[in-house]
Amino acid sequence: MRILGVDPGLNITGYGVIDASRAGVRLVEAGVVRGTKGKSLAHRVGEIHAGIAEVIAALKPEAMAVEELYSHYERVKTSILMGHARGVIVLAATQADVPVAHYAATQVKRILTGAGRAPKSQMQQAIQRELGLAAAPEPPDVADALAIAVTHWYLSGQRAVGSGQL
Amino acid sequence: MRILGVDPGLNITGYGVIDASRAGVRLVEAGVVRGTKGKSLAHRVGEIHAGIAEVIAALKPEAMAVEELYSHYERVKTSILMGHARGVIVLAATQADVPVAHYAATQVKRILTGAGRAPKSQMQQAIQRELGLAAAPEPPDVADALAIAVTHWYLSGQRAVGSGQL
Repeated sequence: MRILGVDPGLNITGYGVIDASRAGVRLVEAGVVRGTKGKSLAHRVGEIHAGIAEVIAALKPEAMAVEELYSHYERVKTSILMGHARGVIVLAATQADVPVAHYAATQVKRILTGAGRAPKSQMQQAIQRELGLAAAPEPPDVADALAIAVTHWYLSGQRAVGSGQL
Repeated sequence: MRILGVDPGLNITGYGVIDASRAGVRLVEAGVVRGTKGKSLAHRVGEIHAGIAEVIAALKPEAMAVEELYSHYERVKTSILMGHARGVIVLAATQADVPVAHYAATQVKRILTGAGRAPKSQMQQAIQRELGLAAAPEPPDVADALAIAVTHWYLSGQRAVGSGQL
């Protein structure tokens, strides 16, 4: 199963595509989509939508996984900005008929490290080991995107994909 | 000048299109785009994006005006959900090369009523009078959308349109 994990942000959106099967999990492609600094919010959501739509068109994932809403955003402003990015990202999935699944940050950390509150560095190492990479993925947004894709693989059997919860 | 005002929401997004000139301001069309209750967030942002894109394609506004970010959202969850809707709405504008302008709720109220904290009913009456309508626009989301379109007309001379501020 090919899974696209996304870590939404207006400045940097990380994405990671994996192929997962009983034989194991392997990296297909990972990277970031950047909204141009200093450009308008409208321009930046356009860049993010186009970037993720391009990844979906090129790599044809069967599912998208993103972090659940408001897992760890405490400030209203940050939350709204992230909401804009997340809105156009799930739109790109829905326009390509790719079902979207959501996982809490604590679920992702637990699946990867066995602890719901693992620090970023530990998550990066876990993803490096899981995917057999020569180095830890950089920036952390890419590691987070891959982590949520891997989480989807391990949890999707127990959880309806695209079941539509927030 | 043809202006599209939008009041974003995941459940109900109000929109209102006006034609404005030195001779006055007149209603072209107004209504709501609804996200289907019980459907997934991804599905609903798809509906909102498609609805607003359709309004833009049909009525060809020269500018879109939306309320400024986090004017009056105090809860993080509400803010993020509204952010999703707002994200796909400004995306629809940017995809159609329509510049987007932003105004604070207090600016809109002051322009329409002379008071920055006018209640909803007073805003609805002001919009009815301004556009010479037989009745106050319903639901309030439509009145809010028209109010922001009218505000854009009165303030756009003093404010760069599509200047890209949040």
